[in-house]
Amino acid sequence: MKPVKIGLLGLGTVGGGTVTVLTRNAAEIARRAGRGIRIAHAAARAYDQAISGLEQIERIGDDAFAVVDDPDVAIVVELIGGYSPARELVLRAIANGKHVVTANKALIALHGNEIFAAAQERGVVVAFEAAVAGGVPIIKAVREGLAANHIEWIAGIINGTGNFILTEMREKGRDFADVLAEAQALGYAEADPTFDVEGIDAAHKLTILAALAFGIPLQFDKTFTEGISRIEAQDVAYAAELGYRIKHLGIARRVADGIEMRVHPTLIPHRRLIANVNGVMNAVLVKGDAVGPTLYYGAGAGALPTASAVVADIVDVVRTLTSDPHNRVPHLAFQPKELSDTPVLSMSEVETAYYLRVSALDKPGVMARVAGILGGHGISIEAIKQKEPGEGDTHVPLIMLTHRVREGRMNEAIAEIEALEAIKGDAVRIRMEALAG
Amino acid sequence: MKPVKIGLLGLGTVGGGTVTVLTRNAAEIARRAGRGIRIAHAAARAYDQAISGLEQIERIGDDAFAVVDDPDVAIVVELIGGYSPARELVLRAIANGKHVVTANKALIALHGNEIFAAAQERGVVVAFEAAVAGGVPIIKAVREGLAANHIEWIAGIINGTGNFILTEMREKGRDFADVLAEAQALGYAEADPTFDVEGIDAAHKLTILAALAFGIPLQFDKTFTEGISRIEAQDVAYAAELGYRIKHLGIARRVADGIEMRVHPTLIPHRRLIANVNGVMNAVLVKGDAVGPTLYYGAGAGALPTASAVVADIVDVVRTLTSDPHNRVPHLAFQPKELSDTPVLSMSEVETAYYLRVSALDKPGVMARVAGILGGHGISIEAIKQKEPGEGDTHVPLIMLTHRVREGRMNEAIAEIEALEAIKGDAVRIRMEALAG
Repeated sequence: MKPVKIGLLGLGTVGGGTVTVLTRNAAEIARRAGRGIRIAHAAARAYDQAISGLEQIERIGDDAFAVVDDPDVAIVVELIGGYSPARELVLRAIANGKHVVTANKALIALHGNEIFAAAQERGVVVAFEAAVAGGVPIIKAVREGLAANHIEWIAGIINGTGNFILTEMREKGRDFADVLAEAQALGYAEADPTFDVEGIDAAHKLTILAALAFGIPLQFDKTFTEGISRIEAQDVAYAAELGYRIKHLGIARRVADGIEMRVHPTLIPHRRLIANVNGVMNAVLVKGDAVGPTLYYGAGAGALPTASAVVADIVDVVRTLTSDPHNRVPHLAFQPKELSDTPVLSMSEVETAYYLRVSALDKPGVMARVAGILGGHGISIEAIKQKEPGEGDTHVPLIMLTHRVREGRMNEAIAEIEALEAIKGDAVRIRMEALAG
Repeated sequence: MKPVKIGLLGLGTVGGGTVTVLTRNAAEIARRAGRGIRIAHAAARAYDQAISGLEQIERIGDDAFAVVDDPDVAIVVELIGGYSPARELVLRAIANGKHVVTANKALIALHGNEIFAAAQERGVVVAFEAAVAGGVPIIKAVREGLAANHIEWIAGIINGTGNFILTEMREKGRDFADVLAEAQALGYAEADPTFDVEGIDAAHKLTILAALAFGIPLQFDKTFTEGISRIEAQDVAYAAELGYRIKHLGIARRVADGIEMRVHPTLIPHRRLIANVNGVMNAVLVKGDAVGPTLYYGAGAGALPTASAVVADIVDVVRTLTSDPHNRVPHLAFQPKELSDTPVLSMSEVETAYYLRVSALDKPGVMARVAGILGGHGISIEAIKQKEPGEGDTHVPLIMLTHRVREGRMNEAIAEIEALEAIKGDAVRIRMEALAG
């Protein structure tokens, strides 16, 4: 069979990696796919001339729209990133009847509903395995591998930069700002780290996973996001003393009233496998009613790991080129007409357990007052611990673990605790999940 | 679209689980697959009348061949297990032009080459996700998700009974025989535990994974197998002191001269994620050249987890019903004509590091003699440790970790060490893998 010709938008980190993988493993990929894959046309403003495999590209220009309009190109691979012109390019590729492969999580999370509707209308596939957890085939696992299951929840470490920072803070007792600076120097974190450390990147990915798991449209605007920039070394240490690790998790859960979608620092028991995922690695834990908990682990970013997912998508699309569109795997796991309007819950409706730390006046009765306020709001305490005061300290850290409660109720209790004269400053509140059952 | 009709062979643990999952999650599965799935005909000699969903089966008989010949049935689901009549049933289903889904690892490992050739010839699919690691979609991950990669090695905990026994031995310092008896009482281990504890079950699964990863035919007879029945509590403890855990791993590795396929107890660094997979859980670590290490974790057995994989396969097959057979995912990941004849290495050609324990006469110079023999065979020692003698002991345990060496050479060294007058009995030898890079 003739090779399939693809068009490549972008020759940056992931674009370069894709060229390298397609070239280096060309023979092995063709042995799997049953036909060769050739890069007929690529577009990039500027690119590294040293990219391995660059010489295999038949034509390189600087006009991405020319690639999308190239009649030679059967599959457009969008690796530019960002919202625009990625959205316009992808929509035009679809309008031209071309299949699309993209690694662009921001694009899918925000414009996926529009893009998939256009693709469905035109009978083409938009594949996006690389958008979540880099080379880990988590989209395929959730969408196909677990298709028998009623999925109950998903919890993922889906931002490598954040996980690197939290791992360093725990292992070396370092401060957030200090580790962030190192991550930037190592190239793990961008100059503007907001997307990573404030959880926006993770929220893009969680939005995608939640849609696939629960059969709902993509709803990025309803995902709650809290970053790790205010996590202090002392909370990491206190959590460890209590048998927990702090991870920046994306959590999507189906409950009776709707669906939770939230990204925030989370205490999890240190014995859980996912608590032992360290450094820049990603992992996604998926709980299905039949299969139980399953976990998928690997590199969440980087040129070659991301290219691994991009190229796997290309092979998948090559296989579907001649298939009846109605029999393909649906973009969002469920048939387009079968998406549900189950509401996404606001954070105040979400139920979780909590780690709380307040700075309490070192005097008898204060702990009892705080505990009394929690009890008054119907919040059960699992553990409470007052640290010893340092030389000359008037206030001491008071640490509590609570049982599960609605966040709205916890907010009321915290406001009341913070209003106590014996409490200095704001309470630190980190959500806590058992990730069991 | 009309529901797809399936025929079910076997209503035991996995068969019952499959009925339950198909019934309980019928609506959700149909929302994904785009059409319903109905059990038109099932065959079982005897079965539990309390299986949830049993009433949904249109017809239950005791003749499996009648199911395979039933013109109503589009997909035959073989959940009888064993070699015969499973092989005859599957081949007849194929001859009848029916697709097949099976959870039978023994059948695939031993007769897969014949079965896939017949399926290829007849243009039907034989799906077997449930044959390895239960509900974990590891076949899909290796065959499709990592299709861009040159896969370097795979290491898996692929027998839950064995992992439960080793976990209990480590956590509680218990003996093998003691834990095995408990596992049998709990129903984790069969009355005849040979398949599990001697590694035959794991070897079936490893044979399948190696074929998928490396593009070679299934070669069960060339898989080296060593069980865990001779692992002693003291070796588990000494390994822990040195920073290692003992796991029963299936390892397949591509090296310059060929392919290694081996199942044996293995020391691995305790910080590796896979070292922290405990109890009956399974995990497979796959190293691809592009993606790096990825890990897949979940329940490797049980009614519902295995049914999860069986039903996912049914959904996959439903999607391919109208597809061009040449564009389907090949049974063994690579196109049938592209399988390679790369040789499988004998164990004496395999290179690995070792944990050695001998019972040495407690006299000066013995340690040096033993170390000298290893050195004489070109074997470097990473660590050597002599335990203190107990009251009245003439011999003490001498423990060594070596660097990597061909097993043939190690065998020679061990024979020479065992021949020393100062050494009592046989050496204990456990292979050791870093599972990095």
